[in-house]
Formats: sequence, C-alpha cells, structure tokens
Amino acid sequence: MKLKWRMMKVGVGIHIIADFYGVDSDLIATTERMSPIIEAAVEYSRLTKISSDYYQFRPRGASGVVLLAESHLSFHTWPEYGLVTLDVYTCGDPTTAEDAFSFLVDKLKPTSVMTKKITRGELINENAPENVEEISL
Amino acid sequence: MKLKWRMMKVGVGIHIIADFYGVDSDLIATTERMSPIIEAAVEYSRLTKISSDYYQFRPRGASGVVLLAESHLSFHTWPEYGLVTLDVYTCGDPTTAEDAFSFLVDKLKPTSVMTKKITRGELINENAPENVEEISL
Repeated sequence: MKLKWRMMKVGVGIHIIADFYGVDSDLIATTERMSPIIEAAVEYSRLTKISSDYYQFRPRGASGVVLLAESHLSFHTWPEYGLVTLDVYTCGDPTTAEDAFSFLVDKLKPTSVMTKKITRGELINENAPENVEEISL
Repeated sequence: MKLKWRMMKVGVGIHIIADFYGVDSDLIATTERMSPIIEAAVEYSRLTKISSDYYQFRPRGASGVVLLAESHLSFHTWPEYGLVTLDVYTCGDPTTAEDAFSFLVDKLKPTSVMTKKITRGELINENAPENVEEISL
C-alpha cells in the first residue's frame, strides 16, 4: 500500500504588483477622483476594509493605502508620467486579488501594464502534516 | 567630438519585498510590540510618515501600513508560523528602503529571509532628455 498526500496549499497569500502606464493624468492627479475607485475595488472584490488613508500631493499626485483583514491594497500616482504603481496583496481566496486588479484595470484604463504575481510566505504549508488526510491507493 | 549622456535614473522607486521566517512568535503576535518597531524603522531611515494604521487579530497576529511621503511600508504577521511579510517601497533616495529593511532584520531577527528588490515604474526615465547634461569627451 502506498500513501499519497492531498494537494497542499502553499504560501499565505497572493501579491499582485502592477505598474500602469498611459493612464489619464487628470484621473490620477487627485485623491478626490482616485479614492472612490479604490474603495469600489475593495467592495467589488468582497475584501474587508479595516481602514484607508489617502494623501494629496501638491500640485498633483495621489497616494493611498487600504489596510484589509486580508492584507492590503495600495497605490501611488505620477500624473506627469501617466503612471500608477499598484499593489494588491490578499490572503485567503486568491480570486479576490485578481478581481480587484481587473476592476482597477477596467477603471483606470492603462495603455500598458507591467505586472508580477508573487506568492507570499511561500515556504509555509498551511496544511500541517497532522491535518493532511492520508489516502490509500 | 562625441557626446555622452549622464547616467540616467530609471524608475520611480525601489520596492523591497521580504518574507521573514523563524521570527519569535510572541514578538510578532501583537500590534503593541510590532508598532514601536515599525515606527522606529521609519524614523531610523529618515522617511516621512503621513499616517499609520495597525490592526490586532484575535487571538494573535498583527498587520500595519504606514503611508509615507515616499510611498509605503507594510507588514502582516502569522505568529503560528513565525512569519512576517514585509514591504518597503520608497521613491527618492534608494538607501532609505535598504536602511529600513536592515533595521527590521536587526530588530525581528528572522532565521531566514526571502527577499526580492523591484524597481517600480521602471519604464520611466526621470531625467527627460532636456534635463540631461551633455558632456564632451
């Protein structure tokens, strides 16, 4: 008889790191226009907001971080370059990070995106051996 | 006569993404112990805090985000694994991110670290040609 372990979940979360280029400068110049988009992304992707902070740079430029029960979402804008740098990091259901990311692509309409998806805590196996069911083959 | 351009700065910021393993569980279990370390890292590395938010998970676990004039610093802990996932993202002087990171390694004393250093907005050349000095050779 052989034993086989169930497929194990590796890591504690998914982190999408994205730089959006070619975004409308006026859209990303102010927290007034950016914050409703960010808040809507959190809501759309069913994430749990703990708090959010925004900062208006003078004359133009905006930053914000949303602390989530599932980790965080953050952005920083450079209207002079049409650039938004975005991070969406969630633990739990990995589709939530992807949903928030897709929502932001849809609303900010970058002409190009450079993105990386990273597993955080990738050495962690959330199913400790004592919780893994042995399956007889 | 040839012309040579000065070395150009590429990107808008440096993002250090680090997962710390083997950290003392009690140290990372509470915002009460984590927040002074995070605030001290910001001060040590001469970063400019705009705001900070922390969240205490029950029974154990802590998260926090610091919005900086230079971007952000964030952490999330899993005391049950001795894990801290850390992000230090700064624009301007790249040594500030490295200083904050080194400070946190020193205070949290992980037994191992997995780290990536990413240039954010790497398609941006902050020295537009009109600002670049021509040097005769």
